[in-house]
Amino acid sequence: MSGKGTSPSGEWGDWVAPREAWARVRAAWQPSPAETEHVDLAACRARVLAEDISAPRDSPTFDRSAVDGYALRSEDTATASAETPATLIYAGEVPMGAISTVAAGAGRAVWVATGSMIPDGADGVVMVERTTRDGDTVRVLQQVRPGDGIVRRGDDLQAGARVLRAGRMLRPQDVAALASMGFARVPVRRRPRVAIISGGDELVTPGEPLQPGQIYDSNSFAMAAQIAAWGGEPVVLPRVHDRPEEVRARLGQAVHEADIVLLSGGSSVGVKDLTAEAIDALGPPGVIVHGVAMRPARPTIIGVVEGRLVIGIPGNPVSAMIACEVFARPALETLSGMQVRDAGTVGEHVERGRLAEAVRSQPGRQDYVRVRLEHSGGETLVRPVPGGSNAIRSLVDADGYLVVPPERAALDRDEVVEVSLFE
Amino acid sequence: MSGKGTSPSGEWGDWVAPREAWARVRAAWQPSPAETEHVDLAACRARVLAEDISAPRDSPTFDRSAVDGYALRSEDTATASAETPATLIYAGEVPMGAISTVAAGAGRAVWVATGSMIPDGADGVVMVERTTRDGDTVRVLQQVRPGDGIVRRGDDLQAGARVLRAGRMLRPQDVAALASMGFARVPVRRRPRVAIISGGDELVTPGEPLQPGQIYDSNSFAMAAQIAAWGGEPVVLPRVHDRPEEVRARLGQAVHEADIVLLSGGSSVGVKDLTAEAIDALGPPGVIVHGVAMRPARPTIIGVVEGRLVIGIPGNPVSAMIACEVFARPALETLSGMQVRDAGTVGEHVERGRLAEAVRSQPGRQDYVRVRLEHSGGETLVRPVPGGSNAIRSLVDADGYLVVPPERAALDRDEVVEVSLFE
Repeated sequence: MSGKGTSPSGEWGDWVAPREAWARVRAAWQPSPAETEHVDLAACRARVLAEDISAPRDSPTFDRSAVDGYALRSEDTATASAETPATLIYAGEVPMGAISTVAAGAGRAVWVATGSMIPDGADGVVMVERTTRDGDTVRVLQQVRPGDGIVRRGDDLQAGARVLRAGRMLRPQDVAALASMGFARVPVRRRPRVAIISGGDELVTPGEPLQPGQIYDSNSFAMAAQIAAWGGEPVVLPRVHDRPEEVRARLGQAVHEADIVLLSGGSSVGVKDLTAEAIDALGPPGVIVHGVAMRPARPTIIGVVEGRLVIGIPGNPVSAMIACEVFARPALETLSGMQVRDAGTVGEHVERGRLAEAVRSQPGRQDYVRVRLEHSGGETLVRPVPGGSNAIRSLVDADGYLVVPPERAALDRDEVVEVSLFE
Repeated sequence: MSGKGTSPSGEWGDWVAPREAWARVRAAWQPSPAETEHVDLAACRARVLAEDISAPRDSPTFDRSAVDGYALRSEDTATASAETPATLIYAGEVPMGAISTVAAGAGRAVWVATGSMIPDGADGVVMVERTTRDGDTVRVLQQVRPGDGIVRRGDDLQAGARVLRAGRMLRPQDVAALASMGFARVPVRRRPRVAIISGGDELVTPGEPLQPGQIYDSNSFAMAAQIAAWGGEPVVLPRVHDRPEEVRARLGQAVHEADIVLLSGGSSVGVKDLTAEAIDALGPPGVIVHGVAMRPARPTIIGVVEGRLVIGIPGNPVSAMIACEVFARPALETLSGMQVRDAGTVGEHVERGRLAEAVRSQPGRQDYVRVRLEHSGGETLVRPVPGGSNAIRSLVDADGYLVVPPERAALDRDEVVEVSLFE
């Protein structure tokens, strides 16, 4: 009755560690990154940049004023102070967004607003607050040094300098940088398509009536939300029953429609075997990982079918979410050409804190423990959230998770730990 | 020449602190939260829940098996061990997703898969790994206690218990919880509409040719990206020139189309005055904050027009981004019915680290310093990123920002600081 992934002895060493599992995946699965597509600047946020971006020209492209005030020759203010102001003649103003038609020769002051082009002849700008004006007479109440009040051409970005690296998920400020360089379209990776198949004769779609013995399908919705949050395009396929030919047919269809397939079966031995058999039937190489030394999500199965990664996700909702975090997320990042975290360790956003209570584990097993963060008195307290791998409640109440590595049998109370934050 | 927001003395105490500015906003602006709308479960991620959600029924709705194995009467295994197994008769199996047609009476064992309904008569389940089977004879190799291997009805969620609070931005696991409770539609707040108007005669749309003295408009793209990232709906309106009647007309239009208006003018005195004049012309109450004791973004202007919040955003790209973070973000959260952070302090995702170098500020001024995080040897080093308020580069290179509060003139090297992470 026990399948390939079952350890009769119950020892964790019989399964591979998460890191080793990922290493096997990368040995068997070496996909090309998703193709490049060009999107409008206004639509590029949270997309992954496909190419390095260098500045096509200096930014700013001209010397600009950093303040509102008067552009002048600094030498005219060599002895200026509040008591002995330098007296200059108002020579006009520089229109915003255009070349100055007036010059700032000896003894002359030209009005510039913040961002105005510096007029010919000027080598400094005095803030308006340090001047007085009476008709065409401008008095400067302090010495101005060469370069004061001026943003030089190329101060922000120099022509040819690399500003953004390929593989970055674009943040608002990256959008700002692209805009300031004049890009109207941006080369990004196509969102990797992730097919989601959930299976189980007990599953019912939310909104439908529930019969005795049935439960609502939550994994396909949760996994789709995770994939979307990570920048992928979820493709939810119709549910399958626990029948070999049905699982095999749907999986065969999915590998032609998506880059990655998540097959969320039940956690029962028979159903796990369906997933493994379907992957092997459609291989080679077929199944490459069958059970991982982790908790939750030990019954995770990973295979490669026609160059597509297929992950058999355990049916328990907590297991499903962690399995996706540990394996589907780095797979998605790989296809997006992103820098991939060391799978099975800690996530992207990490907060450090002190453990409120001891956490027990077992040697040889990597645990992912849901925790809540409590901030008090400048300190962060990390409190484990109770609940088994079936307890959605424990995920809802959690701010993130911590990892107990295989070499530790427990974490101690008051130990400082790193928490990977959920979205 | 100096407007209301200009301090001739240059002392920071002449402007209000960010926290006081926000308090004035909340005294003058008390909007109703955005209306409730119902969206499909598959579309509710990253939306803000509009109502508390309680479990409509127990979850699971029946006692389920937690393992693959045999359901039995625990008393039948009172003396069972590997040496002296209990011998039971195989009585059939429980079909997944349905009521059992067989019962587990005295001396009988019923096969259950993980998730199967526990058959009548059974009060425990033994894992298959702790059994052997030979035809209709099942040998149980260990004692089973009442409740072993069973997930009780209501173990995860109890009927009537509040599972999710209104105001939560829904994460993948919250979607899982909603699904498991059977919700096909979810009540969320309408995304607040945020109108974005950028103004400046020097601005050119990315992709268009750049003439001398001109720069590309980056703020409207960056602000739209920020608003989208925070769950709002950006509405980018046509750019305006630096003319009072044009600014006034566009603002008058915007307050009828949006909940919040961001008016990004230049940083120059004249243009700032245009913003303030337009707000006052369309008031009351008109302008309520005119200059904030912060750097960058000191020239921020805030007003209320016909119940809509209008924020005059400084033109420098770094100032614009910080002003939005400090004022537009909590405004958006207020409209969404979210818990609002104490404005002007630190953001949502915080990482603590040791300052790699001293940071100078001025008493009375709140500084937002862009920083990069360097992780080495289990320690986080926080390194300020050089660059003025015009330097988009400093934003691109930054992982987040730290806040130097008004009462501090500097932060010391090696001081432990909290960094608010950018998206």
